[in-house]
Amino acid sequence: MDTYIAADVGGTQIRVAVFPAEGTQPIVHKKIATKARGEKAEDRLAGLIAELILPGSRVRGIAVAAPGFLDPKAGLIISAVNVPGWKMLPLRQILQDRFQVPVALGNDANLAALGEWKYGAAQGHHHVLYLTISTGIGGGAIIHDQLLEGSRGLAGEFGHIVVEPGGPLCACGQRGHLEAVAAGPGMAKWVAQQIAEGAASSLTSIQNPSGKDIYRAAVAGDALAIAAFARSGRYIGHAVADFLHLFNPSIIILGGGVSMAGPLLFEPLKTALREAVISPEYLNGLEILPAALGDDCGLLGALALARAQA
Amino acid sequence: MDTYIAADVGGTQIRVAVFPAEGTQPIVHKKIATKARGEKAEDRLAGLIAELILPGSRVRGIAVAAPGFLDPKAGLIISAVNVPGWKMLPLRQILQDRFQVPVALGNDANLAALGEWKYGAAQGHHHVLYLTISTGIGGGAIIHDQLLEGSRGLAGEFGHIVVEPGGPLCACGQRGHLEAVAAGPGMAKWVAQQIAEGAASSLTSIQNPSGKDIYRAAVAGDALAIAAFARSGRYIGHAVADFLHLFNPSIIILGGGVSMAGPLLFEPLKTALREAVISPEYLNGLEILPAALGDDCGLLGALALARAQA
Repeated sequence: MDTYIAADVGGTQIRVAVFPAEGTQPIVHKKIATKARGEKAEDRLAGLIAELILPGSRVRGIAVAAPGFLDPKAGLIISAVNVPGWKMLPLRQILQDRFQVPVALGNDANLAALGEWKYGAAQGHHHVLYLTISTGIGGGAIIHDQLLEGSRGLAGEFGHIVVEPGGPLCACGQRGHLEAVAAGPGMAKWVAQQIAEGAASSLTSIQNPSGKDIYRAAVAGDALAIAAFARSGRYIGHAVADFLHLFNPSIIILGGGVSMAGPLLFEPLKTALREAVISPEYLNGLEILPAALGDDCGLLGALALARAQA
Repeated sequence: MDTYIAADVGGTQIRVAVFPAEGTQPIVHKKIATKARGEKAEDRLAGLIAELILPGSRVRGIAVAAPGFLDPKAGLIISAVNVPGWKMLPLRQILQDRFQVPVALGNDANLAALGEWKYGAAQGHHHVLYLTISTGIGGGAIIHDQLLEGSRGLAGEFGHIVVEPGGPLCACGQRGHLEAVAAGPGMAKWVAQQIAEGAASSLTSIQNPSGKDIYRAAVAGDALAIAAFARSGRYIGHAVADFLHLFNPSIIILGGGVSMAGPLLFEPLKTALREAVISPEYLNGLEILPAALGDDCGLLGALALARAQA
């Protein structure tokens, strides 16, 4: 039996799944913690892959989704800040040496875009923009039926464009990035600031309200919480207008925890987008949809990559 | 003899050139005014093409670079504001019906990017970003050896991203776009404002100084004029950082009148770019070069398109 192995490495978990030649239903899958005393993350990853390989099967290819900067052509993890020791790590070579099959690497958000295009909400489109909005904002683009990677695999950092010059500090060290103002922590910071300035809200009773707290309050009708989603939606909508002018996709997919808020986020986003485009032609036939693959998007993107490269 | 015909239509001039199967030296070329009483621009274009076709030659393809919005797949000019009557014009069909050869259309700035990649400063690169900075700011990108057009040909509007929310009005009707603050008219507006606020400058003697006036003053050492280029360079550098995060090209080509200022623009641009990237990896091996093709970039881009499509 022919199989493909897909892995999704995050700061907390390593997930590995074995897939048949066709379809998106894994034959077997398992997750383990990324960190363990005295063991390198790459050894834990390789160990889990070895454990899951089916006896008597032929592995046609392995692909790994990883966070941070990596060079897919060189097979090199440049820096994955959340994974200890993953800096200038030749992960492709390490796995190829061990398993003697083709190995491919991809940035997790880029591969999520690939997954949504091959198996999810963006099937059949040729120009796709995918954004994931949670603790950070990442994304990926399909252009002319091909994943946008750039010359060294560093493309698609949709959260790291300036939307408010001199604005709040971003996790990357720059200021005023879309991620800094519109992702979960940026929302929480804004809510805390509004409360400190005397805004009335059910959230005043919670110490450091999280994105989930704000979501619950918004669903319950809290005006400040609703305003927090509207604010993020506006920022994202204005940024998406820029992205339309640059990429002119026919579909935009929104994933990640914050996007689960649905209309609370999507409606102000669409309004802002309509206000900010330079021509209604950009919206002509444009679809804006929630992601379809949920937490599996990275893994299924890796599957698509493994199948494409094998 | 096999030939290709390239045309570049602007608000002022129509340029047409006949090229041999290989090389970038036209066999014959001619320009005429775009506007003439009682004659449509498309008829003037077709007439000039007919006039230049060499007796006994075989035309293998025609390509036209045009300003504004157009859909290359549909062969449709959506709106070319500078060309009277060019709104929802099926230009490809019109020219194909008349000349019975393959006809292709492209946005002029997008095709300039294609020209610089095929015949100019970006040869051999796979991921190219081209910006033209003059009265407006336009551009184009090559991604994976392919011109970025987007789902309907509207991609590559690099001047129309917000760099200063609520900032100066842009020609497109939106506010705070890169074009509005950093192109020639935005520079001139800023200089006029500084003078009105009492800044000392040799430009005080000129009524409404133009971009060229500012350039001449800067070369002569005028501090305000030098500051105007530095300001544009900074804005463009910060925007280019965003573009690197999105596209990760290996080369950036800067063309257009304002870019002729050389180091006056390029040095502050590079400084701003170094400040604003989220990782030095984006600058690793990155080339930043002036355009090589000058005024012929649109025409040579159309030539590249004609050869690719024929």
